[in-house]
Amino acid sequence: MHKIITISTEGKGLYDFTREVATALLEAKVSDGLCTLFVRHTSCSLTIQENADPSARRDLENWLNRLVPENDPLYTHTAEGADDMPAHIKSILTQTSLSIPVIEGKLVLGIWQGVYLWEHRHQQQHREIVAHFLSS
Amino acid sequence: MHKIITISTEGKGLYDFTREVATALLEAKVSDGLCTLFVRHTSCSLTIQENADPSARRDLENWLNRLVPENDPLYTHTAEGADDMPAHIKSILTQTSLSIPVIEGKLVLGIWQGVYLWEHRHQQQHREIVAHFLSS
Amino acid sequence: MHKIITISTEGKGLYDFTREVATALLEAKVSDGLCTLFVRHTSCSLTIQENADPSARRDLENWLNRLVPENDPLYTHTAEGADDMPAHIKSILTQTSLSIPVIEGKLVLGIWQGVYLWEHRHQQQHREIVAHFLSS
Repeated sequence: MHKIITISTEGKGLYDFTREVATALLEAKVSDGLCTLFVRHTSCSLTIQENADPSARRDLENWLNRLVPENDPLYTHTAEGADDMPAHIKSILTQTSLSIPVIEGKLVLGIWQGVYLWEHRHQQQHREIVAHFLSS
Repeated sequence: MHKIITISTEGKGLYDFTREVATALLEAKVSDGLCTLFVRHTSCSLTIQENADPSARRDLENWLNRLVPENDPLYTHTAEGADDMPAHIKSILTQTSLSIPVIEGKLVLGIWQGVYLWEHRHQQQHREIVAHFLSS
Repeated sequence: MHKIITISTEGKGLYDFTREVATALLEAKVSDGLCTLFVRHTSCSLTIQENADPSARRDLENWLNRLVPENDPLYTHTAEGADDMPAHIKSILTQTSLSIPVIEGKLVLGIWQGVYLWEHRHQQQHREIVAHFLSS
């Protein structure tokens, strides 16, 4: 059982898609099992982070931008734009796949945890995430 | 099949819980399948690292503290203390979930691999990890 | 169902083993399910990255080498060589396990995604990766 979740992004930042995963889980009718999220791109990534205070997500974004700046003279892979190589680096430092157990029909996320697509490119993108469910 | 593993932490550092996972696996009676570990917090994380020489873990801790220091003027999310924002950043650079295959009733960990909770906060915490098992 | 994939590495860098995983999947005859890749070492790691332009992989390697240099005076775990502690750090910043859904007999990798072993040591190594498959 799986569902393709498509997220349209408008620039860099964290996009919450916890609700879309919860909906896909309901449709999959899995009571006990495993939810795997897999993003089919190498210039964005997945992460689980605090869903309460937006300032935490802003700081995450700013910190990662400082660690992996654009126009670093180290980059040779520059044909696709100044944000391309930083996007690949940010992607390898975060996640392409996430595994979340399902118990009694619910994701076992902690109360403060949300599931995020992390867009690392400036321009509008359509991102595809596979939400896959296995039943125990 | 799942078990909640609770770990009480007393400050920052790596806490080995390989034995707790092995015990949970025994109780789950899975012979061939998949073990998923999921930590229900965003200010600590999971990692698999060398279980032999404690100096490796000390260096990991010190290196990560230097990369993500407290009191960085970049942070705006500071209401919960100087170690809060660094904890979130360290968490996105490491893992919230780990997947370990089970073969012939055993985790396929290499001989030098241990499973660790990485606490990123100073004060005592009670951390909840879901150990979930699927059978082939 | 599982297969051990062994990769002989000759120094630092990214080694594509997407084809070996696809072959193991064919042999496992899984039509819908989950592929888990797990590397049984702590001085190399796994990542999913762009498979098109080799310059992206060179930049990834060079960027990570700069972030985690050899001979950093912070290291105390130095008995196994100058590349040992950097290898552990690079390993915790990337992945030990990857989860890739399988749909209609195929890994759901995006068109530009390849599966890589990331070797962090200089000398020749024989690396063991467990490719494990669960059927829905």
